Amino acid sequence: MGSAADSKIFYEYVNFEPLKSLEKIKAAIRRKGADALLVTQPENRRYLSGYTATDLSIAESSGALLVPARGKPLLLTDSRYQLQAEEEATGCEVVLIQSSILGEMVRILRRLGIRKLAFESHYLLYDTANKLMGLGQKHGIEIIPASRMIEKQRTRKSAEEIQKIRQAVFLNEQVFQEVYANLEPGQTEKEVALKIEAAMMRKGAEEPAFPTIVASGPNAALPHAVPTDRVLNHGETVIIDMGLKLDGYCSDMTRTVVLGKPDKQTLKIIRLVRKAQRAALKTIKAGILARDADRAARELISRAGYGKNFGHGLGHGVGLAVHESPSLNRRARNKIHSGMVVTVEPGIYLPGWGGVRLENMVVVNEDGCTILNRDTTFLDI
Amino acid sequence: MGSAADSKIFYEYVNFEPLKSLEKIKAAIRRKGADALLVTQPENRRYLSGYTATDLSIAESSGALLVPARGKPLLLTDSRYQLQAEEEATGCEVVLIQSSILGEMVRILRRLGIRKLAFESHYLLYDTANKLMGLGQKHGIEIIPASRMIEKQRTRKSAEEIQKIRQAVFLNEQVFQEVYANLEPGQTEKEVALKIEAAMMRKGAEEPAFPTIVASGPNAALPHAVPTDRVLNHGETVIIDMGLKLDGYCSDMTRTVVLGKPDKQTLKIIRLVRKAQRAALKTIKAGILARDADRAARELISRAGYGKNFGHGLGHGVGLAVHESPSLNRRARNKIHSGMVVTVEPGIYLPGWGGVRLENMVVVNEDGCTILNRDTTFLDI
Repeated sequence: MGSAADSKIFYEYVNFEPLKSLEKIKAAIRRKGADALLVTQPENRRYLSGYTATDLSIAESSGALLVPARGKPLLLTDSRYQLQAEEEATGCEVVLIQSSILGEMVRILRRLGIRKLAFESHYLLYDTANKLMGLGQKHGIEIIPASRMIEKQRTRKSAEEIQKIRQAVFLNEQVFQEVYANLEPGQTEKEVALKIEAAMMRKGAEEPAFPTIVASGPNAALPHAVPTDRVLNHGETVIIDMGLKLDGYCSDMTRTVVLGKPDKQTLKIIRLVRKAQRAALKTIKAGILARDADRAARELISRAGYGKNFGHGLGHGVGLAVHESPSLNRRARNKIHSGMVVTVEPGIYLPGWGGVRLENMVVVNEDGCTILNRDTTFLDI
Repeated sequence: MGSAADSKIFYEYVNFEPLKSLEKIKAAIRRKGADALLVTQPENRRYLSGYTATDLSIAESSGALLVPARGKPLLLTDSRYQLQAEEEATGCEVVLIQSSILGEMVRILRRLGIRKLAFESHYLLYDTANKLMGLGQKHGIEIIPASRMIEKQRTRKSAEEIQKIRQAVFLNEQVFQEVYANLEPGQTEKEVALKIEAAMMRKGAEEPAFPTIVASGPNAALPHAVPTDRVLNHGETVIIDMGLKLDGYCSDMTRTVVLGKPDKQTLKIIRLVRKAQRAALKTIKAGILARDADRAARELISRAGYGKNFGHGLGHGVGLAVHESPSLNRRARNKIHSGMVVTVEPGIYLPGWGGVRLENMVVVNEDGCTILNRDTTFLDI
């Protein structure tokens, strides 16, 4: 800490070459010795194809992407999504499925001459994977599990992706500021959360990136509280943790606010959490271990006697998914790299009293990090 | 059709004995020769425990339920959800997970003396299931796949569940009627969909049961259209397909409306679809094959020359999930049983022109079915 090796905090991002995602994945498929990868994870599907449809659930998919090691990807979908698929996935051949993807898989694989198919073993149900492997065995096609090939690539964002994330962060802050300006004692947590989500949609977000958290007074002592009918009161901490999806990309921000005048204890905790956040920001740059960023914030909080009250990790990656690699926590031995976008969100939670969490998003650079947030509400008190 | 064997359509549901769900599942676990079932599917978890937390995704779960063949179920969750779990899952022992459910599974199974564990193979990821089986092998615990044990039981609803579904249907109709009363040419599909979802939340729904469909003019020719920026015009069909979740249970209703005066063609199609819906309703009772209900509607539409324009099945089960067993379509050879709740939703879609779909929900009785809907908007024209 505090050495000459400290990272720099930027407010503008330094560009780097955009990744050519599809070609990189094809190379990874070839390295794995497979002829194609079946992509079932919805964010991965969107990442490689541009197809924006969402799935009602893992068991009710709007399509799968078949990425051959060479050539054009195939988007397998049904008539309900045909138009959307053709409009959006312009780099893909849209293949209309009549009955079920599994039912028509062998025919499609044969047409493409695929003899070894990798599937996303971290995002296919056990029964479905077994059926697929059974089909493979019957028809002389080798089926092999492949885990997180695309997720690994998604951790480092292109300049274009960072631009989209920046827009999502900016819109999220606009929503926050609008709702914060009208925050009043007597409103319930649920009412405020609904207002936030309605404003997101009105301002053009695709959807909330996760269920909005509004936790007041003692409820703020729960890091992932669900909004209740409790009314906000003067003087207590209110944690607002919110994020939205815009053009596929997520934002995630937490502010802790107090209606009226915060007392001494509250000011002390807020300042401590903010100091911990800045300490973490100062360590973040390409090449450090993820756990070292966590440690910078945690040591500061621990030294002040609140170590046990910071019960979660420092942060997580954000991109097409609101929670993605890397994790920044005390056990994370992985290095962080330039182009990663992560949250920095230390917190202190005191049962019975409340809590404070402050969360910003940053891009990792070679020699520091770029803060994507502009909003300073209750950060500089 | 039209024989003396026709089913009766009721407007009040005839009660039957509530199912004792947990005891029935325990018996099914014993019949399978297992000592316990690991429940990971969120609706199943709620069904057996009362725990209402939702999962951010299948990979970010708010807990798993371990149901021993004898004794009290265990709800495995982490500190974020502890309070909620203890308040809601009053019949369960809440077990706090420090690291991960898999990481602590062996210890928990040993404490309970479980030597043979069934898991939900239709709702566990391939990688996770393999890790679980690896752990089992290492520690002498047999791990066996079990598919849809609880889903099978969930298809037949208790009187209490039907009461909850009825409330969800009623609230959904109130939302529809409010938004319909203010429907005007010039509003966009997206605006109307947002209004509907905002009204759902304002009136106390947990959440929309699925993304609301508002499809106007030619867009109505797509059965699962996503709302666009297209504005509604006089005279064209507007399909509104909406549902909400209330106290865990879903509603699902479709109305097709016309702003201003529908022309002859539109009237003809609406009346035909309504006639097809009534034909299906007349066949539905305990003991018939699901495909026979579908056929009743389909034959009528086909005879009028629109067979190719009814491209989806007649309906599906509704309960804790908005799409659940049974499916009512032309291939469905399964029988339907009393206490099942299903949608009846024939449609006709004419590319370039638009579409008409009408959807009500019914409970299957021994000698007919009970319609859960009261709203008659554009049904009786």
